[in-house]
Amino acid sequence: MNLLLFEPKEITADNIIVLNDRRSEHIIRILGCKPGDTVRAGLINGPVGTGEILAIGERLGNAEVVLRFTVEGRGPDQPTVDLIMGLVRPIMLKKILAQAASLGVGRIFLINANRVEKSFFGAGLLKDEKYRTYLIEGLEQAKETYLPQVSIHERFRPFVEDFVPTIAKNYSRMLVAHPEAGKSLKQEAGTEMSGRTLLAVGPEGGWVDFEIEKFIEQFFVPVSMGSRVLRTDTAVVALLSQLMVLRGE
Amino acid sequence: MNLLLFEPKEITADNIIVLNDRRSEHIIRILGCKPGDTVRAGLINGPVGTGEILAIGERLGNAEVVLRFTVEGRGPDQPTVDLIMGLVRPIMLKKILAQAASLGVGRIFLINANRVEKSFFGAGLLKDEKYRTYLIEGLEQAKETYLPQVSIHERFRPFVEDFVPTIAKNYSRMLVAHPEAGKSLKQEAGTEMSGRTLLAVGPEGGWVDFEIEKFIEQFFVPVSMGSRVLRTDTAVVALLSQLMVLRGE
Repeated sequence: MNLLLFEPKEITADNIIVLNDRRSEHIIRILGCKPGDTVRAGLINGPVGTGEILAIGERLGNAEVVLRFTVEGRGPDQPTVDLIMGLVRPIMLKKILAQAASLGVGRIFLINANRVEKSFFGAGLLKDEKYRTYLIEGLEQAKETYLPQVSIHERFRPFVEDFVPTIAKNYSRMLVAHPEAGKSLKQEAGTEMSGRTLLAVGPEGGWVDFEIEKFIEQFFVPVSMGSRVLRTDTAVVALLSQLMVLRGE
Repeated sequence: MNLLLFEPKEITADNIIVLNDRRSEHIIRILGCKPGDTVRAGLINGPVGTGEILAIGERLGNAEVVLRFTVEGRGPDQPTVDLIMGLVRPIMLKKILAQAASLGVGRIFLINANRVEKSFFGAGLLKDEKYRTYLIEGLEQAKETYLPQVSIHERFRPFVEDFVPTIAKNYSRMLVAHPEAGKSLKQEAGTEMSGRTLLAVGPEGGWVDFEIEKFIEQFFVPVSMGSRVLRTDTAVVALLSQLMVLRGE
């Protein structure tokens, strides 16, 4: 945990925050903080700053920490990339969500596809926003505060044919990752990119031809990583990182 | 397995290869191949081509496959990036090795650092080149054949102060990943890079200041991913992917 994150609703009067969970355990047992110490802290979807520890105690069987948050700077810009992803196994999804949050993604659309196992949509991880834990883990790691918005789409065609056209105007570029694309992201994008990008990465096993066709019908451009066929988790990190370079970051 | 890989010593006269292990199991049970079918195949550190299945059988309790390899094209170029990495937990190392092989790395130097747990050097994974399995998994996934050469260095200072100077002439650029660098890879490298790059990525918890100083003394340039602090596994994939873009790939 490189950044202590908290929710807007946790702030009481005078910017006081009372923590009584894994975060206070971490502050006391791992960081060994004492009253008067400060930690890097951030408000989810808000600014980062410092948390001054006012008091330490025990309550309800947990370590408890009272701290005062002082804002430094302003909140995060919305990341300029949104991600469509064919749904993967829960264990891989946890990892990808944390990594995507670390790298900065605005929206994440988890969708069905031919090579998605139907059972994945029943995973406990997708219920009651349980995946949120992994997004926050990624933010705590990266010292970022922008929490990606996740939505789940159980039918491929309605998502691509009906939903995508309603959001397409938000993007200056829509890309679909496909090992047979013949063009890399760099070759497609040139040296510099601006505006928002919508990136679609396939499930384990990749998109099938029909799906690629449907994306192309909606004006997505296929891009590859050379001739390399990457696993979904590798491809997400690789392409998000390449987009950072192409945006000049 | 997107590419069937085999070792030079497995080729007998007439380009015949006899497989009696997980590969033949895969060809028969997963791919459902029959005599006359062909699979994409590649020689480790050599060319890719096709494997025509001549016969299928059972021996020593395994499925057995006899195939004839036909070369198409030439062997791989040596990747233009070598990677120094602070040694990480075996479970993370397996993943990183597969991903690095998928993305294309020439040499991988696994080194000690302040935040490396000493016990990691005793891991079974490092004995008798057991890590090779994960490199090959990455190549099979990516359809590549260049097997990275791994070496293990248990002392930080002799590696950086004595060994690095003996290889430095091979590189046009040496970079050390450091979240506080202040400059991204893009800002450091400009739009285009050529020649070989040596990239050093810290262990879990990152490099300590002393280590960064030692790298800088040896002419490494610190680079970051903005202000983001990435896990070792994310940073390796992210930076290797960014180097691909900067090389124009």
